[in-house]
This record gives sequence, structure tokens and C-alpha cells, in this order.
Amino acid sequence: MSRRALLSAAVVGAAGTTAATATAGAVIVRHSVAAMDVEPIEFRGERQAGIVTAAQDRLHFASFDVITRSKSELARMLQQWTVAAERMTRGEETFAGGAVGLNDYLPPTDTGEALGLAAASLTLTIGFGPSLFGPDASDPFRDDRFGLAHRRPAALAPLEAFGKDQLDPARSGGDICVQACADDPQVAVHAIRNLARMGFGVVSVRWSQLGFGRTSSTSISQHTPRNMFGFKDGTANLKAEDTALLDRWVWVDRSDNTPATQWMTGGSYLVARRIRMHIERWDRTSLFEQEAVIGRTKGDGAPLGQTGEFDAPNFQLSDGTAPVIPRTAHVRLAHADNLGGVKLLRRGYNFTDGSDGFGHLDAGLFFIAFCRDPHRQFVPMQQALAERDGLNEYITHVGSALFGCPPGVGAGQWWGQTLFDN
Amino acid sequence: MSRRALLSAAVVGAAGTTAATATAGAVIVRHSVAAMDVEPIEFRGERQAGIVTAAQDRLHFASFDVITRSKSELARMLQQWTVAAERMTRGEETFAGGAVGLNDYLPPTDTGEALGLAAASLTLTIGFGPSLFGPDASDPFRDDRFGLAHRRPAALAPLEAFGKDQLDPARSGGDICVQACADDPQVAVHAIRNLARMGFGVVSVRWSQLGFGRTSSTSISQHTPRNMFGFKDGTANLKAEDTALLDRWVWVDRSDNTPATQWMTGGSYLVARRIRMHIERWDRTSLFEQEAVIGRTKGDGAPLGQTGEFDAPNFQLSDGTAPVIPRTAHVRLAHADNLGGVKLLRRGYNFTDGSDGFGHLDAGLFFIAFCRDPHRQFVPMQQALAERDGLNEYITHVGSALFGCPPGVGAGQWWGQTLFDN
Repeated sequence: MSRRALLSAAVVGAAGTTAATATAGAVIVRHSVAAMDVEPIEFRGERQAGIVTAAQDRLHFASFDVITRSKSELARMLQQWTVAAERMTRGEETFAGGAVGLNDYLPPTDTGEALGLAAASLTLTIGFGPSLFGPDASDPFRDDRFGLAHRRPAALAPLEAFGKDQLDPARSGGDICVQACADDPQVAVHAIRNLARMGFGVVSVRWSQLGFGRTSSTSISQHTPRNMFGFKDGTANLKAEDTALLDRWVWVDRSDNTPATQWMTGGSYLVARRIRMHIERWDRTSLFEQEAVIGRTKGDGAPLGQTGEFDAPNFQLSDGTAPVIPRTAHVRLAHADNLGGVKLLRRGYNFTDGSDGFGHLDAGLFFIAFCRDPHRQFVPMQQALAERDGLNEYITHVGSALFGCPPGVGAGQWWGQTLFDN
Repeated sequence: MSRRALLSAAVVGAAGTTAATATAGAVIVRHSVAAMDVEPIEFRGERQAGIVTAAQDRLHFASFDVITRSKSELARMLQQWTVAAERMTRGEETFAGGAVGLNDYLPPTDTGEALGLAAASLTLTIGFGPSLFGPDASDPFRDDRFGLAHRRPAALAPLEAFGKDQLDPARSGGDICVQACADDPQVAVHAIRNLARMGFGVVSVRWSQLGFGRTSSTSISQHTPRNMFGFKDGTANLKAEDTALLDRWVWVDRSDNTPATQWMTGGSYLVARRIRMHIERWDRTSLFEQEAVIGRTKGDGAPLGQTGEFDAPNFQLSDGTAPVIPRTAHVRLAHADNLGGVKLLRRGYNFTDGSDGFGHLDAGLFFIAFCRDPHRQFVPMQQALAERDGLNEYITHVGSALFGCPPGVGAGQWWGQTLFDN
């Protein structure tokens, strides 16, 4: 009954590996097909998967509080998680025969709802939040309970709230995160659910977020998807193919760390922001205003004044009286040219979480970005946006979290080993 | 820029129409491929689509309050909805050129996030709730404001709460529902969002629910999917191919109606129940107990005492001291044999809506069933379950709604026309 065994009997007649490549004007088929018979994504390696991996279509992101004060219990859970995570990314149960095969009189060691589903390009990416390292002045229970305070990199200092933030503590922070991405949402939900189950007594779910559609491309082979404002999002994103830029902007280098923080070398920092989009307000705004706020055309995603999505924006261009790309346009403020060259790797998802109780859909963007130093990359960018972005009339940041994602795990290693194992 | 125009330039090299058929033991690929180049599902016809249509993988369900007291405003909105719904199910914008093509100085008439996406087998199914007909004793604003009281069929009397219900009014009821099902969630979300946008001032969103994975099959060509308890769900469901049974149990007949309620002839009643599943409690229960509660094996989904998923359960079978299928087993209580032959068409979805604030995932089943008379089908079944189902230890019904879904719209007709047009 292992999902792997099933996998080898893969469906005959299934389509090829064709994931419809996107060209402007062609119908996009969410790569659906990718879920079919593509190889599982390798869990182990120099880097964690799920960062520069071509962004899958669906997300389940979970932030956990560590509720034990025992470092060895926590380490043991991380070892168990690693085994299960590697298996699940291969399309297997958390344990062989876990759902139905072991012992009738014990709880199953896999919850079973992914039995028979393909691996669906599942990746599981772990990160550790500032609060794991304590002390946290706002929470007396978050002292330096694991003796890790000296091992927190400066780059992992908590994010301060920005000017217009309306952060909900119940949707912010957390000691450990796991980002599950897959092309089948049930596979991503199953993974998070099983890690939470295995972590009973050691961690509890602080918050979690489903994303139904990716908003970023992380490979030049992917089309640029649209966000809930109907605009292509992430055109200027870093891509997996930009290896020199990734080294510069995404991967933490040895030289960034002290001896005590070398556990982050080869890793990356994950910034998560739950951005509520006031879609009803937006939907009653003229196309002209929408395009001025974003700084791109809605149809093609071309910078205003240009014709193609990937044309470089010309911020000097004027219509005689004013800049063609307004001073408050999102694309201007977020652009590397206006931030001293700063870039980051975005990997966000659209969400809709029911209604807000006031007759509106609770919808928006779950922003995820990976960077080498959030305080030198994300923070200056977000400061510029928080102060002047015209989009602020239509969005509110309601959740915020930062995590340090260690490098990939090599053969025989476990998640976080370099942090906990000495 | 119309999505239809794009559609005709469909992606070259895309895979065939193969939707991996499910056989026990084969890897299930969520039909992903179906999103690709299959024909859109016809919006008009004798029946509304989305009832016996082979269940798509993703759901966005919305319940609306009608906030106008003008019957003509409501009728006008339903006419506009019909035009937009038909277009969207074809993979088109709500209006031709709506997202970017009409007038820069007006709000776009399509929100754009589905630009370029395929039709993805989108169906939109409308229903009208008891409260639309008023009067509602609990709400003085829900009087018989549209003069429809005499047109409410007896079968559309509000559902009473069952013994163990813990219903949240904010997740229950509503004057109008739209069920959007598609194989791409962004297509389903786009459809609901645009109907809500078009309904501004006439309706407001009372609640909405995303479902990430279907839990029911409605065609013999579909495999039986698994719910969040890891069990195959809906094995004994009615199927589109059971036309005689559908006529008996799903479609409202002329003889069911008075002259004033003939608008429901050819339609069906939709029961929606948000069922919170306490997955953490379930996950700490032995396999033996799980299977006894359900009455089927977890792996194959066979009735206890049998070997194949589709074997008939034998409720008389005893192990010498007790029935093999316990008296409180879900499958026993919900089985037609124990309900005087009553059946219904289930069309539910798994959901996960973040965390519940107590360290658990807020997960469960969004139950949808279609029936000819909910009070003679759903109610007796649910009463039996509410009283004795062993599953009650692990689930709580937190939302409930009932809607009358009129028959399909013919050429030139609009949603609800037979109810509002005279």
C-alpha cells in the first residue's frame, strides 16, 4: 500500500510531461499535467527544495509554536519529520504501510488521505523563527529555553512592523515554519497535517495558510501568473536560472555568518506576509487608476510606456506634465533601480479564506520571499512601499513572519541538525 | 483579449483528454489534464450543470444575502449574472474585453485574474434559500419583501438544527447560493468574485467556502476520493449514469409541485453542511476504532467483512458476539437499506481553513448533497446519524444551508426567470 509502490504502476495512457508553456496570448493550463508522471523532486541536496524549485501551483504553509522546553524532544521530532518529509516528497506514506499496514490497535502512522495520489512535485521547506532563539521580551515563556540565543544570526532579528501594518498576532510569527508546495493541494495539506500530527506534544499549529494559485514564477520556463487584482505579478522576479544573482541575493554565504551562525550558510531567509487585498474597492476603480497604481498595463503586463511584459521600465519617461510611471506606482517603488539594486526571490500565492463578515471575500496575496538578508533587502523595499505605494489604498498587511531556512540536508542528515546537534 | 479567443489558440503539444481513470491500486492523478483542452461544460440545458456533472476537483461556494428590497433590481442582477456565468463557463471574460478592453476611465467589467486560463470545466449552479421567500421570524428585515412567500415549495422549508449541531449563523443560510466547481481553483474563485462584484448593492457575500479536493464521485468513470479522515468517501453515491435513480431521488418532478412552485420542476435541492472534522482526535485513534466507526476498511474501502470497495455491506454479519459492522457505524446508519431506501447525490469537498486558534488545523468536509426532497431524504438520514453515529465523537456540524436549485436555463432564459418573471 505504499504510495511509492503504487507510483511504479503509474497510470497507463497518462499524458506526457508536457506542462503547457506560457506565451503571451496562449491559454494557460495550470500545470496540472506536472502532477502526473513527472519525477518527484529530490528532498536532499545542497539546498532545500521549494526555494528555487519551479513554483508549484498550490501551497499549504504552516507556522508552529514549540511547546516543549526539551531540546532533545525537539531534535527527536525534527529527525522524525525529516524521515517523513523525504518519504512524502517521493509520494510515499510517512511510514511504510503507515495508513493501514502496521497495527490495528495503534493509531495509523499516516493519515491516509494521500493514499494513491502522485508525488505532485511536493516540496517541504523548513525554517526557524527568531522566537525559537529567545528571549522574546513580549512573551516570558519564550526565553532562551534551548540555549540557542547566541546562534541567532543578526539577519534573523525579528521584523519590525511597518507604518501601515495591521498585524494579527494569530497570523504572525512562529518558532518553526514548513512550506509545503505541490501541484495537488491534497498532497500539500496531507504533508502539513502529518507533520503536525507527528509533532503532537512538541509543537502546535500557530497559524496556517492555504494558497490556491501561485503568483510568482521562479523559472524562465514558467509564465507569469496573475494576482487577485488581475495583474501579472512577479515579472521581474529572480529566476532559478540566474545563478549569479541567486548567490548574491538569495543564498546565505559563509562570510555572512559568525562561527556560531554557520548553520545558515547555504540557506536563505523566508519572509511571509499575509496581504489582505480589498478587492471590492479595487474592482470599483477605473482601469486607468489600476494601471497607474501598479505601473504596468493590465493586459500584457508591460511597464507603462512600453509594449512588452519584459521590457525594462523607463522611470524617466514623461508625458509632458508627469512621469508616465507615477511616483507612487508599485513597480517604481519595488524596482531594484530605486532600491540600490536590491532584489529578492518571490514565491507567493493567491488566497481566498471565505468571507470577512462584512459582505466581502477575505482574499489576497500570501507573499513569500527568500533573501540573503531580509533587513537589507525586504525591509528597505517594504519601507519604501509602506510609505509611498499607491497600492496601500487597496491592501493591508495583516500577517508577518520571518524564518531562517537552513541549507539542504545531505545523506543521513536531518532538518536543523547543524543548529541542534552541538 | 477574450479568454475564448485565446482558447482557440490552444496550447500546442498539450496532452490529450486523458483523465487518469482510477482503479484500485493505481496512482490517482487529480484530473489536472481535464483542465487542459477538454471542451467547456455547456451552461444551458434541461438541467443546471454542476449537479450530475462529473465532480470537478476544486470548489468555491458562496452564499449571498440579498440586500435590496427591489424585485426588479434583483431580477436585473440575475439576468446579468446569467450572461456572465455562461461566458465564464466557456472560459471567457464576464464581458468581451472586460478586463482591459472597454474604457480606461471606468472600472473593468472583468477582474482579470482568469485571463488566459482555460475554462477548466467550470460549472456555476444557482440556488435560492428559504429566507429569500420570507417571512423569517428571526429576522424582521427578511419579510416577504419580494412577494414570493406563496412560491416557496414545502420541500424548501428551512432545515431545523439536529441534536448535536453547533451551527454558526455566519456560516449558515443565505438567500442565494452559487456553487462554482472547476479543475483550476483560480477559475472558480474568479467566477464567484465577479458575480459578487456585479451584485454590488443587490447582494453581499454572507459566507463562502473553498474546497481543495472533491470527496465524491458523481460518475462511474471517477475514482472514489478520500476525505480528511483518510477514508474513501461516497462509494455508494448516486452516479450520473443511474438515470432512473436520479429521477427518483434527485430531480424534482412536476407532481412534487403546486402550480405556484412549478419553478422547481426539473431542479434539485442542495443541502450544504460545513462539517468540522477533529482530525487531531481522529489521528490518535487506533486503526481498529477508525474502521469500526466508519464501517469500512481504510485501505480498500471495503465494507467490514467484505473484500472489495463496491461489495454490498452485510449488516447481518456477526463475529459471534457482535455485528461485524457495528450498530453505530457510519456506513450502516447512512445506508439506504436502513433508511427505507432513501438515497441522495453527494458532491462534497475537503477543506482546510487555517488554524482554529487552539493549535489545530481547521479542517473538514464541506458536505453538499442534491435531493428531490431534503426533508424526506437528507433529514431522516441526518437524524439517524445525529442520534447514533459513532463519528459524532470526531465531527461537528458548524454550518448548514438549504437552497432550491431551479432547472437549467434554456436559450434566451435567465437564472431564476421562472421564479421572478411573473
